[in-house]
Amino acid sequence: MKKRLSIEEYTNGIISGNRMILSRAITLIESNLQEDKQLAQDVLESILPNTGKAIRIGITGVPGVGKSTFIEIFGKHLTSLNKKIAILAIDPSSQLTKGSILGDKTRMEELAHEPLAYIRPSPTGASLGGVTYKTRETMLLCEAAGFEVVIIETVGVGQSETYVHGMVDFFLLLMLAGAGDELQGIKKGIMEMADLIAITKADSGNELQANLAKSEYESALHTFPPDGSGWFPEVVVCSATEKKGIAEIWELVEKHREMLSKNGKFVENRKNQNLAWMHDFIKQSLEQNFYTNSNVSTKIKDFQKVVSEGKKLPIHAGLELLEVFYNRKL
Amino acid sequence: MKKRLSIEEYTNGIISGNRMILSRAITLIESNLQEDKQLAQDVLESILPNTGKAIRIGITGVPGVGKSTFIEIFGKHLTSLNKKIAILAIDPSSQLTKGSILGDKTRMEELAHEPLAYIRPSPTGASLGGVTYKTRETMLLCEAAGFEVVIIETVGVGQSETYVHGMVDFFLLLMLAGAGDELQGIKKGIMEMADLIAITKADSGNELQANLAKSEYESALHTFPPDGSGWFPEVVVCSATEKKGIAEIWELVEKHREMLSKNGKFVENRKNQNLAWMHDFIKQSLEQNFYTNSNVSTKIKDFQKVVSEGKKLPIHAGLELLEVFYNRKL
Repeated sequence: MKKRLSIEEYTNGIISGNRMILSRAITLIESNLQEDKQLAQDVLESILPNTGKAIRIGITGVPGVGKSTFIEIFGKHLTSLNKKIAILAIDPSSQLTKGSILGDKTRMEELAHEPLAYIRPSPTGASLGGVTYKTRETMLLCEAAGFEVVIIETVGVGQSETYVHGMVDFFLLLMLAGAGDELQGIKKGIMEMADLIAITKADSGNELQANLAKSEYESALHTFPPDGSGWFPEVVVCSATEKKGIAEIWELVEKHREMLSKNGKFVENRKNQNLAWMHDFIKQSLEQNFYTNSNVSTKIKDFQKVVSEGKKLPIHAGLELLEVFYNRKL
Repeated sequence: MKKRLSIEEYTNGIISGNRMILSRAITLIESNLQEDKQLAQDVLESILPNTGKAIRIGITGVPGVGKSTFIEIFGKHLTSLNKKIAILAIDPSSQLTKGSILGDKTRMEELAHEPLAYIRPSPTGASLGGVTYKTRETMLLCEAAGFEVVIIETVGVGQSETYVHGMVDFFLLLMLAGAGDELQGIKKGIMEMADLIAITKADSGNELQANLAKSEYESALHTFPPDGSGWFPEVVVCSATEKKGIAEIWELVEKHREMLSKNGKFVENRKNQNLAWMHDFIKQSLEQNFYTNSNVSTKIKDFQKVVSEGKKLPIHAGLELLEVFYNRKL
């Protein structure tokens, strides 16, 4: 790794929009080295006043839905409107699929060359929890660097969607027009989080099927209770290759922001997300501190057999482990 | 509350099948009084060698599916086979619905009078987490008291199903034959956990619809990956009022147990459940210890505004709170 910069060098570099320094700051934040952690925290703290101004969009969809193609065209539409955009990926399955999202260097090639666009693939081998926290922080760095739209991409198959939904203003779900299995390919909980569903690949000749899917999803959305934001999720059809429906999607994002800014839900959502971030971090830290405690892990090994075989009550074993952790009687 | 008994009185009473003492022991375990906790633990520890011998069945379904009627008839079928059965309820929504499950005294009246059956309603106002841990412990007490089948009833709408699934050998989902909304009334994740789906109210005149629903659920089940137990979930139709399909359901429970006992998955599942119970307890305790710490809660109040407004980084606030909790620098 290159020499570390000073807090001021990172901060000034990021705020002036220097991408090389932005990238190095992200690498610093992703680092698991103990000596990087304090510096990373200081950098984040110092850029904090410059954050919060972007529209944060989560985009998800199952593999095969055409996510990269969509994001490339959607991103180019935004840069054509002179928007500075950053694209971040959360890929909990990267170890299995060997970098199915942005790790694949041949994808989004055109967008990658746009001067207004910044693409940051997810670090390889990162765990969901880890990447997620780092993704929130990376998002803040990108905002401080002046990006006006931050897109967070995730594969619509795992738990990462809930995390992404918890850090964005607008959640876009990409869906395929398919053969009757529309409601099965994606978990209902993910559909329930969507502010907008876009049926992809509605290319010429495929419109009928796409519009059929649109109606189906519209009725599916009606079965969910309203989320209290005042926004009712819509369904649109789009074609990335024919550039259809792309502008409309961006207009809906803006319309959503406008409505929620007026009724106060935009700010309220951000506030709740900040608090949830703190609590998530606490819960994760508590568990991590507990399970990495060497006395605890030794005793867990001792308990494994008796607890699993029902010879020791699990809650009693748990209580004894907590006493070891806190080093006192409970 | 009545005078507490001694450990020996509880233990001997439970093991000899004395229901009054069993009920008092359950009340002891459900107690939140500090002075009851140690005694409850001792009783549990002493009856532990007598536990584990029942078949544990979780039964769930949305309100209106006819759960009470089903359990009453199913229970009476079991008592007619000379089985001692205990029925426990998990009702996280009891505060809202004012005791929608077993709290309603007029339900399962016939079964309640069967000498071989024991029905224990869920305590009012209990939280999901609380009831759940108490339900596991109550289940052990019932096993020690000689019940051969323990049925745990839950409403199929919340999170409680995952917990129940984590403590039973067999998970039965009751579903209605309906008007096309079959797959929408219940979360897919719950269907995915089912070892058996029973379409209820397949009364005379309603068979066609019930069989239609059966086919639909059968194909829905085919979309889930196998759970590795070797068991493939089935769908049956039944009518509690006409006592159709009830014997078949019990035969499937026994067939399931036989298959999983032979291939070792029955024991493996129990072992995993015991370990998961320990870890769940640890996670819940860590959070509870943290959030009930008075220094922590004071500081959380201080941080609420700055964190929610994005003026303090959530992870830094979290870190400071953890330092307060552990009373040392991290």
